[in-house]
Amino acid sequence: MEMINLGQFELVSNAFSFAIAVMGAATVFLFLGRSQVAPQYKTAVTISGIVTLIAFYHYWRIFDSWQAAYTVTATGLTATVHKFNDAYRYVDWLLTVPLLLLELILVMRLSREETVSKGKSLATAAALMILLGYPGEVSNITGERWKWWFLSMIPFVYIVINLVSGLTKSINSQPESVRQMVSDARTLTVLAWCFYPVVFVLPMLGVGGAEATTYVQVGYTIADIVAKAVFGVFIFAVAVRKSESNA
Amino acid sequence: MEMINLGQFELVSNAFSFAIAVMGAATVFLFLGRSQVAPQYKTAVTISGIVTLIAFYHYWRIFDSWQAAYTVTATGLTATVHKFNDAYRYVDWLLTVPLLLLELILVMRLSREETVSKGKSLATAAALMILLGYPGEVSNITGERWKWWFLSMIPFVYIVINLVSGLTKSINSQPESVRQMVSDARTLTVLAWCFYPVVFVLPMLGVGGAEATTYVQVGYTIADIVAKAVFGVFIFAVAVRKSESNA
Repeated sequence: MEMINLGQFELVSNAFSFAIAVMGAATVFLFLGRSQVAPQYKTAVTISGIVTLIAFYHYWRIFDSWQAAYTVTATGLTATVHKFNDAYRYVDWLLTVPLLLLELILVMRLSREETVSKGKSLATAAALMILLGYPGEVSNITGERWKWWFLSMIPFVYIVINLVSGLTKSINSQPESVRQMVSDARTLTVLAWCFYPVVFVLPMLGVGGAEATTYVQVGYTIADIVAKAVFGVFIFAVAVRKSESNA
Repeated sequence: MEMINLGQFELVSNAFSFAIAVMGAATVFLFLGRSQVAPQYKTAVTISGIVTLIAFYHYWRIFDSWQAAYTVTATGLTATVHKFNDAYRYVDWLLTVPLLLLELILVMRLSREETVSKGKSLATAAALMILLGYPGEVSNITGERWKWWFLSMIPFVYIVINLVSGLTKSINSQPESVRQMVSDARTLTVLAWCFYPVVFVLPMLGVGGAEATTYVQVGYTIADIVAKAVFGVFIFAVAVRKSESNA
């Protein structure tokens, strides 16, 4: 693999550190904010904070793994014997992506049956999506990457269709005051999510080795911040608004 | 002992990191969720969170011990002078397994006499089971492993029989709305538990050295996640449901 240069190494390091700060801050904000929402929304806010806490832990590991993978020398950057561990991202997503969908479902406060059935089907599809993406991510063979990307896109499209069309009825049943916000939360999820498959294909679109590594790491980091921290604060805002209107 | 390869080393490392994230997340979820259940169920939920907290601590130590036991070199993986410390698992189980049985008994809310008598007998049997398993786990002699496995299976079978038949009357006295859930929690315990003696015997069934090490470590990790984190969330769900129905 083509070596990244010192500037690229530093850019990625700083992006990871930024993510640690954002995820840690969001976790504390959500855990403290939990006391400000009505009892029926506490679990949604708790899960939002747990998602950013899990991401905080993994970005710490990712940062350390990145530092261990390279050494700065007098003449520039050299790779060490330690490979950067991509698995941390996938382990993180395997836990957090199903939980993110649960947050959205819980804050809508559907009937118990609908919550359980939608929660089960979306969380299962999310776990499947991540498990199918990993073998492609760790492969350097373009054909293999496309194969797993395609397989992973099947549950991905299923979830997006579910969010876009399946939730419309549930969103329309939300109280007037939050209908737009819940709809926005849904749009934010779909937009942030579309980032991931695009970042995944960058190395397959002829973006050169070192540059691709940089774009992939920075790209995933931005997507994670939007999909977890920004989204979590959004869920909290919906919970506060609904608590105020006794909905 | 046959050396594991780099891929096996990384697989086990990632499994341990996954366990750290799951146990930490479950602990926070249960400690925050404690405020959402009726006073008579708070102890059951507190103990559930303490079990995952103890496991969180031990998986951190286990992860570090695993990293210290091997070094990545330019030519692959080499063992260091530090032996991977299996004792952390047994110390963890010695504490958590009796507590797991107490969780189940407490959430059922039996009479005080029944709670004390069942708690004492099951917790004592659980501690005995762990103490008898350890000498076998650290032995490389197949005959020794079988001897301690057999001795450890005596309290194991006693507990399983107690859970399967002894608790049936108590489960039938649970309120209608949670009877199925409590029964499922019992089934989950029994199923997760049956995993351990099977993982233990893998090295005695001719599964080769390095492969056995990998399967044993990943197997115990999955079993721990189900028996502690998934089970703990289940206990919380039962407590919430019972609190709602004032049971």
